[in-house]
Amino acid sequence: MKRLVLALDVYEKETALKVAGETARYLWAIKVNWPLILGSGLGVIGELKRETGLPIIADLKLADIPNTNRLIASRVFRAGADYIITHGFVGRDSVRAVMELGEVIMVTEMSHPGAREFLQPSTDGLIEMANELEPFGIVAPATRPERVSYIRRKLDKSIKILTPGVGAQGGSVHKVLRAGADYIIVGRSIYTSESPRESARRIYEEIGGSG
Amino acid sequence: MKRLVLALDVYEKETALKVAGETARYLWAIKVNWPLILGSGLGVIGELKRETGLPIIADLKLADIPNTNRLIASRVFRAGADYIITHGFVGRDSVRAVMELGEVIMVTEMSHPGAREFLQPSTDGLIEMANELEPFGIVAPATRPERVSYIRRKLDKSIKILTPGVGAQGGSVHKVLRAGADYIIVGRSIYTSESPRESARRIYEEIGGSG
Repeated sequence: MKRLVLALDVYEKETALKVAGETARYLWAIKVNWPLILGSGLGVIGELKRETGLPIIADLKLADIPNTNRLIASRVFRAGADYIITHGFVGRDSVRAVMELGEVIMVTEMSHPGAREFLQPSTDGLIEMANELEPFGIVAPATRPERVSYIRRKLDKSIKILTPGVGAQGGSVHKVLRAGADYIIVGRSIYTSESPRESARRIYEEIGGSG
Repeated sequence: MKRLVLALDVYEKETALKVAGETARYLWAIKVNWPLILGSGLGVIGELKRETGLPIIADLKLADIPNTNRLIASRVFRAGADYIITHGFVGRDSVRAVMELGEVIMVTEMSHPGAREFLQPSTDGLIEMANELEPFGIVAPATRPERVSYIRRKLDKSIKILTPGVGAQGGSVHKVLRAGADYIIVGRSIYTSESPRESARRIYEEIGGSG
């Protein structure tokens, strides 16, 4: 099972396609976000899919009322996204609106300092929500392995944990895998590397290859 | 003082420009969101500004880490947006990242049922955050005037309150103005009307015209 997700936090389509093409063999999926969509248009999702044959995660951090979430998600799924990252804190009706259209990965915690203010105190409620709604997965920060293992204990086994924050943000691959993460999201350490392919291969092997 | 904001929750640029042009004289500002940006491209912001001469509020509900919020906001302000609607829930560093680039309107509460789960219990903390950061304004739901008046009592006088939910969602203009709202955001009641101009004029006069 491949467990590496490439976070393409770049603006330009050319860079995105180049890095994705070079590293595809080591990846489970590719994650794109708003900066790339604004810089390249929604069509970049389909191009990345065709270039790599991999699933595309649209990291939109959707956090609107159900109807607006639905309008955004329908466009983005139609453009070829396989998963949309959606905030849970706006409530289950907003998450359900996206789940009715496709697969959701729900944010429970985040890796920046501000996440401690309101998100972290809400984690238990957000995990409960995930257990009830059963999205494909949830996002939890690799920078805090103790939080990942806390979430893993409370979260239904069938729900995957995806963790950003390994590499540039300082999270350790081994700690976060031991804590129970299913997929590791890596951006800067790959796309700013002199050889993205070499960097992706190294992380892929560190994770345990296809084992 | 004009107090009406047109929420252009539509996909097509032609509809957006037509409704905006017809109603501009009754508006303080125009609010656009992701569905319109995905449907028409970011250029729609500049086109709406040129067509109407009004401030543009980009209702992105930004809710990402500081760096990603910054990358998105810099593109959107550069496209001509005057204000960006940003979630406070992700913490003050994420809000500050946007405020460093331009004016912010912060979400404290929302009008859909799911907003009761995590957002409403966090209102006091979010108001405190707003009082500390001093964004241009905050968003609070017209569907719950008692919440608007609660927020108004605790919020610094210098921070404006913008309220969506009047009209199609059932909120009353008079109740929400009495509760302390500064600006009323109206979408469907105007853009699905047979005469958007007539509907905008009616609401404009209900609010008290330019008085």
